[in-house]
Amino acid sequence: MEPVLFYGVPHGCSFGSIVALEWLGQPYRLSRIDMLAKSKSDIYRRVNSMHQTPTLLLEDSTSLRESFAILQNIAARDLDRKLGFAQGTKAYDSLNQMLAYLHTSFHSAFAPAWAAYKLGEGDPAIAILRDLAKEKAAAGYATLQLHLQGRDWLVGETKTIADAYLIGIARWGEDLGLFDLKTDYPGLHRYLQKLEADKAVIFAHAIEDATPAITAGKFLGHVTLDDVGTHLAA
Amino acid sequence: MEPVLFYGVPHGCSFGSIVALEWLGQPYRLSRIDMLAKSKSDIYRRVNSMHQTPTLLLEDSTSLRESFAILQNIAARDLDRKLGFAQGTKAYDSLNQMLAYLHTSFHSAFAPAWAAYKLGEGDPAIAILRDLAKEKAAAGYATLQLHLQGRDWLVGETKTIADAYLIGIARWGEDLGLFDLKTDYPGLHRYLQKLEADKAVIFAHAIEDATPAITAGKFLGHVTLDDVGTHLAA
Repeated sequence: MEPVLFYGVPHGCSFGSIVALEWLGQPYRLSRIDMLAKSKSDIYRRVNSMHQTPTLLLEDSTSLRESFAILQNIAARDLDRKLGFAQGTKAYDSLNQMLAYLHTSFHSAFAPAWAAYKLGEGDPAIAILRDLAKEKAAAGYATLQLHLQGRDWLVGETKTIADAYLIGIARWGEDLGLFDLKTDYPGLHRYLQKLEADKAVIFAHAIEDATPAITAGKFLGHVTLDDVGTHLAA
Repeated sequence: MEPVLFYGVPHGCSFGSIVALEWLGQPYRLSRIDMLAKSKSDIYRRVNSMHQTPTLLLEDSTSLRESFAILQNIAARDLDRKLGFAQGTKAYDSLNQMLAYLHTSFHSAFAPAWAAYKLGEGDPAIAILRDLAKEKAAAGYATLQLHLQGRDWLVGETKTIADAYLIGIARWGEDLGLFDLKTDYPGLHRYLQKLEADKAVIFAHAIEDATPAITAGKFLGHVTLDDVGTHLAA
């Protein structure tokens, strides 16, 4: 079977992996995981024991976890697409540096606010955790806006897996009610709006929202967890 | 000039990059950054605008930030050393998956406790932040201990940049007074003790502690920030 990407809703960081698969232009399938569901799927636990998304189920029925690893796997499938770069080059280093920044400092900036989100109303920890997240995320947005001055894309001359990943997580500041990006980071906002107009990004939103989605790549449809279970057992 | 690694003391995650450079066996230099110093060096700001460590100053006088990118750069300098693997292979994916886990979930687990560390005594946020860190770090230690069952090293049959990185950050749970690894995670502790006996790890500790250090690789000595400034200006 073609690779199957398990993506999480609502608003998972797996969004970037959907965008990257569209840009790659090779056949793939998707499987939807509701991250807020009370009962966790046993089948998905066999795919990802930590029950996190994204996971990429590969052609040999093994699973690849972690956005960073999945995005590099997608890029390496066709380096001529320039979603990533050849190992050992300057561009490879630059892309790793940006991906690492996005996956560590920037992604983790929001973590305290997500932890606060799970607490009961009135818990005194909520304000402390949200303040910590806001301070760290503000530094992240400012750093990215500065980096993008005079650039069209995060790394090199064309869009890469770094841009795909950022468009999936930059929205969290507004999701959490911490920022209004258009007002607070207008330069970054313009860059994000440019990505929002990309056919692959429009497709990924439609997939998350479960509205009619027109592939710009080679999406072959959804598979259910039951389908996956049969495949894993085979 | 040979590559210069800027490492942070005390107990920075840059420790892993020192170990990896020793294992690589190619000439390199080090430069020491006191992360607790009140005045930040302007020269180092030119190397790393965020004043974070590690940074690898490359042969062409450009800087590479982020452990993940630095470790992959080191590994790619000689793939025959098997500190990393060729792009597009199964082993490459597995290594990226482990490195991503260590740099994101595991590294960031400690972040709330480091934030607490900077607060004034008696601040009510301290307990909340430490509790959050302890919960997340416990999940991380347990996951790593389970992963190591029946394995000698984190990925594949030999030690890689993932082992180098983990030995530099696994100590944070004890540094922060959150765990006693020997008691709490004996299986993981045995693996860490095996690494502690490695010549490169012994060397990296001596470097951090500023005691006599015997290179197991091709360490050529320290350079001062003033030396670096001259080099950058040239």
